[in-house]
Amino acid sequence: MAEVGVLLLNLGGPDKQEDVRPFLYNLFADPEIIRIPVPPLQKPLAWLISTLRAPKSRKNYQAIGGGSPLRAITNQQGRVLKKALAARGLDIEVYVGMRYWHPFTEEAVRKIKADGIRRLVLLPLYPQYSISTSGSSFKLLDQIWARDPSLKAIERITINSWYSRPGYIRAMGERVREGLDKFDNPDGVHILFSAHGVPRTYVDQDGDPYQRQTEETVDLVMQSLGRPNAHSLAYQSRVGPVEWLKPYTEDTINELAQKGVRSLLAVPVSFISEHIETLQEIEIEYREVAEAAGIHDFRRAKALNVNKTFIDDLAEMVIENLGVYSR
Amino acid sequence: MAEVGVLLLNLGGPDKQEDVRPFLYNLFADPEIIRIPVPPLQKPLAWLISTLRAPKSRKNYQAIGGGSPLRAITNQQGRVLKKALAARGLDIEVYVGMRYWHPFTEEAVRKIKADGIRRLVLLPLYPQYSISTSGSSFKLLDQIWARDPSLKAIERITINSWYSRPGYIRAMGERVREGLDKFDNPDGVHILFSAHGVPRTYVDQDGDPYQRQTEETVDLVMQSLGRPNAHSLAYQSRVGPVEWLKPYTEDTINELAQKGVRSLLAVPVSFISEHIETLQEIEIEYREVAEAAGIHDFRRAKALNVNKTFIDDLAEMVIENLGVYSR
Repeated sequence: MAEVGVLLLNLGGPDKQEDVRPFLYNLFADPEIIRIPVPPLQKPLAWLISTLRAPKSRKNYQAIGGGSPLRAITNQQGRVLKKALAARGLDIEVYVGMRYWHPFTEEAVRKIKADGIRRLVLLPLYPQYSISTSGSSFKLLDQIWARDPSLKAIERITINSWYSRPGYIRAMGERVREGLDKFDNPDGVHILFSAHGVPRTYVDQDGDPYQRQTEETVDLVMQSLGRPNAHSLAYQSRVGPVEWLKPYTEDTINELAQKGVRSLLAVPVSFISEHIETLQEIEIEYREVAEAAGIHDFRRAKALNVNKTFIDDLAEMVIENLGVYSR
Repeated sequence: MAEVGVLLLNLGGPDKQEDVRPFLYNLFADPEIIRIPVPPLQKPLAWLISTLRAPKSRKNYQAIGGGSPLRAITNQQGRVLKKALAARGLDIEVYVGMRYWHPFTEEAVRKIKADGIRRLVLLPLYPQYSISTSGSSFKLLDQIWARDPSLKAIERITINSWYSRPGYIRAMGERVREGLDKFDNPDGVHILFSAHGVPRTYVDQDGDPYQRQTEETVDLVMQSLGRPNAHSLAYQSRVGPVEWLKPYTEDTINELAQKGVRSLLAVPVSFISEHIETLQEIEIEYREVAEAAGIHDFRRAKALNVNKTFIDDLAEMVIENLGVYSR
């Protein structure tokens, strides 16, 4: 069983201030993130956009300690997952491969090859599939596999999405409950699920299942929560001029305020780890939007990080996908 | 996309009276079903057991029309699933491969090869994984693949279990609700989930996840149902002298009767299609047990068969496992 591995896939984030511009360059150089109609212009434009956005982005990372905590949290998730698998009798190595920053997916695959892994579970840390997240990592892995024929010996077991896993849903319910119970009147709180947005064309033209899976996730979490609270779903983090999935989180906060909502719990839904979108965008920017609109009782549910229910479910999911029950 | 296929895996059942003995022989010749400590004796003992059991088994099939409806229902599920995939823009061929009777898994693989399928989703029609069901079919497929090197060109995408799929859970909830609403006082009905049993050693010694997944299924269905009914889970269909998962369905019916239960809805939980275990064992045998114990108001929830919520969810599951969203 020491020949079995799990590769956790995630976005990656700049560790420190100097990383911000090159990280942004990697992000915008990916055609799955920003589609430049003229392919040869992708890299020059990525250079331009990353250079223009870097100062503001650096300031945002400065506000949360200088860099992204994503690497540390993901490494911790890997260690806890390895332990959860060991507790179930399985000796499985866990690797972390980021799409746009260290440890890069390429580095992870080099380790996987050196360790002699024969069966590899690809586990994106995105519960909902999107072309721009899991899809982009899978595409990169296909390219890495195509470049090195010796990798053919490794059986790849791909988990495309896991938005309806019972443990994930229960863990989300726990986080929402913890968040609600910090308010004076928990039942009177409006729950605002905020998911990372994607351009509308991904869903409408390219069949991205992201919106459908996100909506289903919210339904399941509300069902598992078993509380009477009103709730909404909105999409955050839009960049660029094209239309993204609507409603935008900022607009929804303003609308809810107009309708008289005064207590709001923001629940990050597509992010399972704290990073810039939860710590800075929700915690700082959307809090300001809420304050300005008259919602003074604004709180945020924590990301799952290493929540036990969640990590135990990841372990079960790995085992179920390996099918390693038999004698 | 015409090169993509789905192989539905199921047990199979005798089509007519003459098939009963050879079907039973195939069943008991499988060491995943009955473990004979001395392997060379497996086939002679399978012959003996099938010959001894055939008369009673033939009578049971006689009571439900002479043979098993499993083949017709599974073929229909395949046709409806193909349509559901087509409605989602995917031209995917659906095959049926039974473990112990026609159409045998070997026949299905011959067709798959002849049709030039390049990517094949293995979809066991068992929501919960067991060594004795999905595991046995996967083992057989490994043997078929090992015998014919040309099959290596076909990418196999294995779905090991899907007991927590939201559509499956919702569809089960629909069936339970339909069943309850036929009683005069739906809220006063006790719901008895009855799952196919397996020998206890499978779970205790061999790590079969079947019991855990079955319990989780029942929890999720009850949550989705949203009714106040009391419920129990028991295991049916035991054969042979060793201990199987407990409690046995028969014992639970008697206990419930002693506790004063007078209205009982039996819900087949590991069977998604009607066959001998639902039509004869629950509908006839357990009904008699219930009657004798004083439960005169005994009904059964229908198996899912081609329930729309269920088949649509199978289609979504196939698409998610193929990951065929991208441009």
